[in-house]
Amino acid sequence: MQETPSKARIDANRLWTRLMELARIGATGVPGEVNRQALSAEDAQACGLVTGWAAEAGMAPSFDSAGNLFLTLTGMEPDLPPVLCGSHLDSQPTGGRFDGALGVMAALEAATALASHGPRRRSLVVVAWSNEEGSRFAPGMTGSSVFAGARTITSIREQRDADGTSLGEALDVFLARFETIPRRPIGFPAAGYLELHIEQADQLEIHGRVIGSVTGIQGKKTWEIRIVGSEAHAGTEPMARRRDALQSFARIAGALYESVGSDPAGAMFTIGRIEVKPNAPSVVPAEVRFRVDLRHPDRVTLDRLGGIVEQLSSQFAPPCLVEIERLVDAPPNAFDPGLQKSILAAAERLGHPAMEVLSAAGHDARHLASVTRAGMVFVPCRAGLSHHPDEWTEPDHAAAAAAVLLEVLGELLGEDA
Amino acid sequence: MQETPSKARIDANRLWTRLMELARIGATGVPGEVNRQALSAEDAQACGLVTGWAAEAGMAPSFDSAGNLFLTLTGMEPDLPPVLCGSHLDSQPTGGRFDGALGVMAALEAATALASHGPRRRSLVVVAWSNEEGSRFAPGMTGSSVFAGARTITSIREQRDADGTSLGEALDVFLARFETIPRRPIGFPAAGYLELHIEQADQLEIHGRVIGSVTGIQGKKTWEIRIVGSEAHAGTEPMARRRDALQSFARIAGALYESVGSDPAGAMFTIGRIEVKPNAPSVVPAEVRFRVDLRHPDRVTLDRLGGIVEQLSSQFAPPCLVEIERLVDAPPNAFDPGLQKSILAAAERLGHPAMEVLSAAGHDARHLASVTRAGMVFVPCRAGLSHHPDEWTEPDHAAAAAAVLLEVLGELLGEDA
Repeated sequence: MQETPSKARIDANRLWTRLMELARIGATGVPGEVNRQALSAEDAQACGLVTGWAAEAGMAPSFDSAGNLFLTLTGMEPDLPPVLCGSHLDSQPTGGRFDGALGVMAALEAATALASHGPRRRSLVVVAWSNEEGSRFAPGMTGSSVFAGARTITSIREQRDADGTSLGEALDVFLARFETIPRRPIGFPAAGYLELHIEQADQLEIHGRVIGSVTGIQGKKTWEIRIVGSEAHAGTEPMARRRDALQSFARIAGALYESVGSDPAGAMFTIGRIEVKPNAPSVVPAEVRFRVDLRHPDRVTLDRLGGIVEQLSSQFAPPCLVEIERLVDAPPNAFDPGLQKSILAAAERLGHPAMEVLSAAGHDARHLASVTRAGMVFVPCRAGLSHHPDEWTEPDHAAAAAAVLLEVLGELLGEDA
Repeated sequence: MQETPSKARIDANRLWTRLMELARIGATGVPGEVNRQALSAEDAQACGLVTGWAAEAGMAPSFDSAGNLFLTLTGMEPDLPPVLCGSHLDSQPTGGRFDGALGVMAALEAATALASHGPRRRSLVVVAWSNEEGSRFAPGMTGSSVFAGARTITSIREQRDADGTSLGEALDVFLARFETIPRRPIGFPAAGYLELHIEQADQLEIHGRVIGSVTGIQGKKTWEIRIVGSEAHAGTEPMARRRDALQSFARIAGALYESVGSDPAGAMFTIGRIEVKPNAPSVVPAEVRFRVDLRHPDRVTLDRLGGIVEQLSSQFAPPCLVEIERLVDAPPNAFDPGLQKSILAAAERLGHPAMEVLSAAGHDARHLASVTRAGMVFVPCRAGLSHHPDEWTEPDHAAAAAAVLLEVLGELLGEDA
């Protein structure tokens, strides 16, 4: 372990103070609650605030046409691919103060610390990806998915919010607020991507760790399955003649919990939503729609179990008919092994207890991992709670994670081409 | 078989014409649809119309304080217990023209036919029981249950409709419209009760019969069962730690369909309604409430299967908690064997194909059977449809059933004390 007096350091107080100031934008009045949905006036205000702080550190802002905000701390060799670090500034409608915001602010804090010290070889670009949450314009992660080429700007512009406003219309209004900020084309080569995020689970808390080196994001498949039977009178329709959609559901669900839900490979299997028609006490149900949510970190296992979901749904539906619609099919991704090690090593050097963790939720880093080496740092959030006003991360945990970011960024920024 | 020229006969045309005229009261504009809910202005108008027709035949009206309308054709020995015959005039909010109304009008037609012929020993009382449907003031059958002593006038007066109006308040307004009609005490000894009703099932239609001699009403038990688990994130909560209320539901439902629903005794078993909380695709369900509807004509079997419902619900709920609430526990009832035979014999004499049928639905006759010998006559309704604008009974079937009523009433009215 080697330290120099001139080494860049996180200002824990500045990080926390700015994070709380940012949380005032979109604050609802409910203590801790933030409503700062994508491409709203609040989202723009947050981008403006962060851009101002970045300017103080000598960082230059730019937007791409997907609404992603880039804040560049130029390095000595600006033609080398830069290192990207960030997260998102949008929130759920009843969100908290840390989900996304902590990742952007920690990246900005690391950049600010670096800016006041010796020169870096590569440029560092702090990024706020547009519309990660997808609560206003579903699905989310539009900014990072367009950046990585997984979606086109044309397709995301067609998404509409509940009022019928298109993402394209909202994006045009949003970007018009920033006429003095330069535009850049979508996508550019990067030397790596780091994202700090709250864990949104309680593994770190349970194990008493402050830093999570994220091994990957588990894959997710979801389905809507519709069982169609026949409505009939509960008192008169002979059992043998019934086509009871709820009876078929019970058979299918029972088989799925027994097999997929109990598979030794350890998948997450959930039926979270069910709708029954006509849902009347004395009427044999004519139709059941339900949602299946299946998650596993291994792609082969996920595909195998997904096949069982579809096979058992077909097998146990008769005498009813079944329609199986695939909704989400997001493969697992593993983060860069070198970055995973660098994160663990940095945490160890700094004396912060760390462990490897798997992310159950999706993050922008999933998309970045397809175009550059990517890594994620998790910090504990109290009781695993997120998307909630009570979402909470300890100030010293936030500072510890920002310090780990700073360490790893320092390595990446000094690397050869 | 013996007929005399002076024998009373049904006027099929009068019966049908009056039935259609009655159906105009509460007609909604949707062809065939009737909305004539209990104790409404339309219900009162229907009672007034029927009372007027009865007066033309020399019948005297009276109300009891439960809102039951009695139309008495006085016999030669008015001190003997009279014979009761009728059904109800109230409808479901989107009901049809025959459910209840046919039974009252056929009884009135039989009484009208009798009135124009030779004297009868006993009095005949045509009755319209109040609030059979229970769609406005649940539960229904308030009139017949009070008459038979199964409920008290005080308790039914406390039932409230969706607007908060009590049955008692509505009853007072209703009866005030009939100030000139005498009141009578609740309940009186009767020599028997006959009720004609549409089958509300399709056994007669399937077997090509016009008359059903109803053997009894199957017993019914219903429950609301509440399974309480824990809400959790679908992506992060380990399967072994979950208390998934929908998983417990699937186990319970599967076991119930397999045992109770497939019992050799042939019970009707239905789960018609299910509510899940929070019912979100990516959240492990915290709570499931569902309704169980179990019916069987044999009391011992019904009790045995009911015990299994409760036992399996408790057995398969863990790791969730379960609360089992009994809602309805209506034992089966068998109608008077002598009346069953009389109905079949009358149908045979008149040349109408008949069969024994079991009633799956409840009727006022259930309550009457506890205080006098009671019998029911069913007529086919097209495709078994009822509580629907398309509810339909063929005019000649209605006349045939009225003629059977007339035959059996003739026997009962001539009986010794």
